[in-house]
Amino acid sequence: MTLTVYLSGEIHTDWRDQIIDGARDLDVRFDSPVTDHGASDDCGVAILGAEPDKVWHDHKGAKLNAIRTRKGIEEADVVVVRFGDKYKQWNAAFDAGYAAALGKSLIVLSGPDHQHALKEVHAAALAVASEPRQVVEILSYVLTGKLPA
Amino acid sequence: MTLTVYLSGEIHTDWRDQIIDGARDLDVRFDSPVTDHGASDDCGVAILGAEPDKVWHDHKGAKLNAIRTRKGIEEADVVVVRFGDKYKQWNAAFDAGYAAALGKSLIVLSGPDHQHALKEVHAAALAVASEPRQVVEILSYVLTGKLPA
Amino acid sequence: MTLTVYLSGEIHTDWRDQIIDGARDLDVRFDSPVTDHGASDDCGVAILGAEPDKVWHDHKGAKLNAIRTRKGIEEADVVVVRFGDKYKQWNAAFDAGYAAALGKSLIVLSGPDHQHALKEVHAAALAVASEPRQVVEILSYVLTGKLPA
Amino acid sequence: MTLTVYLSGEIHTDWRDQIIDGARDLDVRFDSPVTDHGASDDCGVAILGAEPDKVWHDHKGAKLNAIRTRKGIEEADVVVVRFGDKYKQWNAAFDAGYAAALGKSLIVLSGPDHQHALKEVHAAALAVASEPRQVVEILSYVLTGKLPA
Amino acid sequence: MTLTVYLSGEIHTDWRDQIIDGARDLDVRFDSPVTDHGASDDCGVAILGAEPDKVWHDHKGAKLNAIRTRKGIEEADVVVVRFGDKYKQWNAAFDAGYAAALGKSLIVLSGPDHQHALKEVHAAALAVASEPRQVVEILSYVLTGKLPA
Amino acid sequence: MTLTVYLSGEIHTDWRDQIIDGARDLDVRFDSPVTDHGASDDCGVAILGAEPDKVWHDHKGAKLNAIRTRKGIEEADVVVVRFGDKYKQWNAAFDAGYAAALGKSLIVLSGPDHQHALKEVHAAALAVASEPRQVVEILSYVLTGKLPA
Amino acid sequence: MTLTVYLSGEIHTDWRDQIIDGARDLDVRFDSPVTDHGASDDCGVAILGAEPDKVWHDHKGAKLNAIRTRKGIEEADVVVVRFGDKYKQWNAAFDAGYAAALGKSLIVLSGPDHQHALKEVHAAALAVASEPRQVVEILSYVLTGKLPA
Amino acid sequence: MTLTVYLSGEIHTDWRDQIIDGARDLDVRFDSPVTDHGASDDCGVAILGAEPDKVWHDHKGAKLNAIRTRKGIEEADVVVVRFGDKYKQWNAAFDAGYAAALGKSLIVLSGPDHQHALKEVHAAALAVASEPRQVVEILSYVLTGKLPA
Repeated sequence: MTLTVYLSGEIHTDWRDQIIDGARDLDVRFDSPVTDHGASDDCGVAILGAEPDKVWHDHKGAKLNAIRTRKGIEEADVVVVRFGDKYKQWNAAFDAGYAAALGKSLIVLSGPDHQHALKEVHAAALAVASEPRQVVEILSYVLTGKLPA
Repeated sequence: MTLTVYLSGEIHTDWRDQIIDGARDLDVRFDSPVTDHGASDDCGVAILGAEPDKVWHDHKGAKLNAIRTRKGIEEADVVVVRFGDKYKQWNAAFDAGYAAALGKSLIVLSGPDHQHALKEVHAAALAVASEPRQVVEILSYVLTGKLPA
Repeated sequence: MTLTVYLSGEIHTDWRDQIIDGARDLDVRFDSPVTDHGASDDCGVAILGAEPDKVWHDHKGAKLNAIRTRKGIEEADVVVVRFGDKYKQWNAAFDAGYAAALGKSLIVLSGPDHQHALKEVHAAALAVASEPRQVVEILSYVLTGKLPA
Repeated sequence: MTLTVYLSGEIHTDWRDQIIDGARDLDVRFDSPVTDHGASDDCGVAILGAEPDKVWHDHKGAKLNAIRTRKGIEEADVVVVRFGDKYKQWNAAFDAGYAAALGKSLIVLSGPDHQHALKEVHAAALAVASEPRQVVEILSYVLTGKLPA
Repeated sequence: MTLTVYLSGEIHTDWRDQIIDGARDLDVRFDSPVTDHGASDDCGVAILGAEPDKVWHDHKGAKLNAIRTRKGIEEADVVVVRFGDKYKQWNAAFDAGYAAALGKSLIVLSGPDHQHALKEVHAAALAVASEPRQVVEILSYVLTGKLPA
Repeated sequence: MTLTVYLSGEIHTDWRDQIIDGARDLDVRFDSPVTDHGASDDCGVAILGAEPDKVWHDHKGAKLNAIRTRKGIEEADVVVVRFGDKYKQWNAAFDAGYAAALGKSLIVLSGPDHQHALKEVHAAALAVASEPRQVVEILSYVLTGKLPA
Repeated sequence: MTLTVYLSGEIHTDWRDQIIDGARDLDVRFDSPVTDHGASDDCGVAILGAEPDKVWHDHKGAKLNAIRTRKGIEEADVVVVRFGDKYKQWNAAFDAGYAAALGKSLIVLSGPDHQHALKEVHAAALAVASEPRQVVEILSYVLTGKLPA
Repeated sequence: MTLTVYLSGEIHTDWRDQIIDGARDLDVRFDSPVTDHGASDDCGVAILGAEPDKVWHDHKGAKLNAIRTRKGIEEADVVVVRFGDKYKQWNAAFDAGYAAALGKSLIVLSGPDHQHALKEVHAAALAVASEPRQVVEILSYVLTGKLPA
């Protein structure tokens, strides 16, 4: 069994690296959104032409990013969505809803402060973890049947 | 043509009433989540038994609410998602993602302060409105072909 | 909002009547399998001709019953599966799996003795109730937003 | 033609090994649930934290196991479900229903004592076998067109 | 429960009338293809213009008939396919395959002479009847749970 | 049998009226896009605010119109697409492709001058008519089995 | 582009060999049903046990063959269905209907004698050929864009 | 991440070559329709026999081309549709609609003269480019997260 895992959400800490590094010996293929904040914000106008109105600047960029995001979620067996401490992170919750509607196995990675606010998202998940290490342990268990030592 | 419209998101202002009242002469059927905050939070334990741990208290409730939410979104032609000024509102963004993945026509109702944070959600929408009145005008135009006076 | 509810599982107690009676003032349409045990066992041979081999006797009957069962589950918004105290009840678990794969909202009605044995079925459910009254309260809450008094 | 086969159900005898060994020269890829009973029961709490209540202990574990089970069934061409002599085995029947709803080719492996109790599950299957050897012979026939010697 | 039933196949005997008459007290809606052989053959050229080549004469007609046939099968809960004594009846078998792929409940109505030639079609069916009366009894049983007297 | 028919394409002649009038005694429900050219062009900015750039003026409008168009096509049994003598009419061809991908029964209404240019669209259609009267005759035949007098 | 092609229908002439041989330099993967008539008829009882009644003898075999047939059709891009001169060949027409309902590209291989009887099947096809060589030429054209010399 | 990209539309300029060449270092697999105009027009009659009526000449060809076009669009992650300066190009718009209904990521490549006429097609797209270079830059950004230098 090979797992394809999409790592959605927060882009300001190294949680993706921790998971990818921890799972380096497992049969997992990871995909992620573009995590370069500046490139992600400006890709639309950089490629398709400047917009004086910030609304359309953002619109062009968000649509280009959707090409990658949708492909990543649609191909995934497991979608991990990380909610960090800062920002609104509505795109993370949007991805979680998108993944849930497609029947993907959803793992939420979030801290106790957000427990109540995330209860609807958690209810759609097959696991709620608070540490990247736990996500690695889940992937390892799913693939090998072994519990962490 | 009859439209079925699901009104998702913020539950602390009267935006739903404004839309339902404004559309009273149109061929629209509206559904909504339970908007009684207390009932929504406690429904799980009130019906299925108390939980000492808040995590499971919330979990039981969120799952019961999902029965109504999923039905409402899956039956809708149009899903309107309102983002208010307060709270995390991750359930609103989750519903938007869920609706988008099912190919529903999505209308986002949000103010200019949230424009950048909502750009991925807006990119999946067929309209971004800032006033409930505009949602009524959209529904009226879609059903009758008439523009607002 | 109108709910279509399929009542699957145990046929030897009056749990269906309790739910249907309790929900008589709600906007719910109920469907059920044939609950006459003898008719259900013999329908195949009674209509399509006798079989000397019990295997094919059962096979013909189970296929006729599947016409009703599939229709009931596929049209339902909510599938309630009752596990009683006796018998193997594999058809109940089969219906639960069938409903889960179709994305139906699943409510399991079962007692504490079966908790561990039903854990995979429970994990796919949006509610686990032990009393028919609780199923009525869930349906009432989903449709009206009111908690039980 | 390559077949992907998911081996669901009983975990206390060596029927999976018999099938995998018998099919070692065929173009088949096998997947299975985690068959270490202890790991399967405790995976949730071992990775995501202890639960004082057995219900949630089981719930956390069953959800993690669902990541593997769903992936295995959804990717399979053929789902073999084994019903053994002991236990309730509702998860086996649940998997059979899940597979049937997805249109998978279902093979049931069960003994004559369970014939009547399994009639609804059998009615959804393309084959009912009583010996692992027969499952190997079916896979061999499907792939090569050769009958057993 | 209301059943929608599509009556496909042979158009030279009164089997449809027998079923519709027999089920007159049941909650069933019946649809059928156009059973006027001449109209069915010539509809394409009668409406869309003559064709000198019989191939295109037939092609235009078969496509118009497909509008009705597809609608009928796609809306049906149950598809009854009748194989008579004469003609190739490949359109009947085509409809059976079409219905099976859509997951419809299939009932085949055919006589013992065709048993071997129809074995693949029978294997996809939930019932194989030889008399219209049996189809009525099946519909009655599915809707009321009553066996024939 | 009741047919739901979506009338897509050209908005500058009275072909829709001819069909609707001709079919007034048939069991057909018709839907159409907004056919007021001015309203259709300006709906976006009239409701959601002016745009200095014509690109976004058009974009806002086209998205609002998509709410109605998608609903109309998705609910239809039959999609009639009319190609007139003037304009590019890419939206008509887009609707035809959209309908074809959803498996709708497609009828194209076009003249002989466009035969070669429309060959891919015609190849996806179940009928190619040149007069509104023929569309009425098709609907009448599909519903009643009667050929035109 | 690689094509997966399922060769359904007649098993008494060498048409499959002609196509496979003619396409040996093309990027095509072919699948077929079991074409050993005896094995195909007897596989069910040979593996799963004898049946005194020919109906169930055939039933067991047809169900085993369905494992291969469904897999072959569901994985195919193109389904070629050959109607020969003899036998009822209802399984061929059934496969054509099954393939059509799944949206597969259908090629029918049949002679002029069967033109009228096959008109509904032809109407669902993208090509009607009379010689295996033409099927090779179609596959070659689809993959390379070259017409036959 | 690997992208499969289908290049639909205009066949009289070298835009496909520009994109394929520009993306030669990216992990992209390209598919296209047959771009030899003569072969595309005549393939049907060249392989399946001459037709005296141009309508059926075109029909046979368009159906053969559909085998390749549907496969290309259905397998694609991204569908690029190019509208050139000449011809009706209804097949391009048809492909765009087909791709949109399947939920593919759509990129339209068109010039400013066609902006208004293409507004419905643009509204369904995730990007509207005017130069092949921009399509390469989009593919590069989606795969690598790097903006053009």
